[in-house]
Amino acid sequence: MPKKSFPLSKVYSLLEPGPVVMLTTAGKGRPNIMTMSWHTMLEFEPPLVGCVISNRNYTFDILNATKECVINIPSVELAEKVVGIGNTSGQRVDKFEVFGLTMAAASRVKAPLIDECYANLECKVVDEKMIAEYNFFILEVLKAWIDPSRKESRTIHHRGRGAFMVAGETIKLSSKMK
Amino acid sequence: MPKKSFPLSKVYSLLEPGPVVMLTTAGKGRPNIMTMSWHTMLEFEPPLVGCVISNRNYTFDILNATKECVINIPSVELAEKVVGIGNTSGQRVDKFEVFGLTMAAASRVKAPLIDECYANLECKVVDEKMIAEYNFFILEVLKAWIDPSRKESRTIHHRGRGAFMVAGETIKLSSKMK
Repeated sequence: MPKKSFPLSKVYSLLEPGPVVMLTTAGKGRPNIMTMSWHTMLEFEPPLVGCVISNRNYTFDILNATKECVINIPSVELAEKVVGIGNTSGQRVDKFEVFGLTMAAASRVKAPLIDECYANLECKVVDEKMIAEYNFFILEVLKAWIDPSRKESRTIHHRGRGAFMVAGETIKLSSKMK
Repeated sequence: MPKKSFPLSKVYSLLEPGPVVMLTTAGKGRPNIMTMSWHTMLEFEPPLVGCVISNRNYTFDILNATKECVINIPSVELAEKVVGIGNTSGQRVDKFEVFGLTMAAASRVKAPLIDECYANLECKVVDEKMIAEYNFFILEVLKAWIDPSRKESRTIHHRGRGAFMVAGETIKLSSKMK
């Protein structure tokens, strides 16, 4: 099913539950993918996301150079690939090819979307002040996409050392919180 | 069951999945509680946590003044209280009393632990550089506690507007990721 545009004002609802995501970047050579789990919302709209990308990762240098990336949100069907991607370096392998994932063109950035992920967030780096000390990048989401058939996807959440919690049931409570 | 000391090196495994947490602070008057969902790990050890606390919250001023807090992690049994606490301001009510929660003394900070939460992280503010621009506090976890009978607690994860995902099953994959 083709992806639909997703309102920027609702991006927080995709990331706030804390899913493991895959970050795609487009360097001089082939595009790369990394697995990432240390991220938080910083602002509702325009949506700002803070995330830690270790300077030992290949993506760190690419993101510093290109200032653009896509946050791709996988569901549990992709768990084996998510972990495999976390275990390998894009310096040595073409992860799209090795893991059999499909690139789709983004509309606002050069980095590709991962078609198999149920949501994709096109981002640019907007604040670099915390990179040197904490490897902490601040991203603005420019454009968001969702698979309309899977709004409540079974995301995966890293408990450490290869243990992942799979998103369970949703409950509704009377909240004034946004 | 009394809480046990939890290794600082494993604190990331409690927060990385993205649970809604309750932050306690001890001001000049009574201790306060707020509900929080925008947080991320920044470092494994000593564990550093970044979190957004809106300057419209009563806790913002207390934390700026005292530089200490406790991150309390609730499970789904406390969901109604978590939401109620998110809907009220500590400026007007004593949340421990109104919501029937039990204070326990922390060992390293003045802010109290919430006894009913299955894990508690005693924290101090260690970097204030991002507060003015993003309401983003950087905390170091000084001491961690866990209920040893509930290591895989059913945490809740905010999807927005009162919808919460409840932690589901845990799957184990062969990961090199810490």
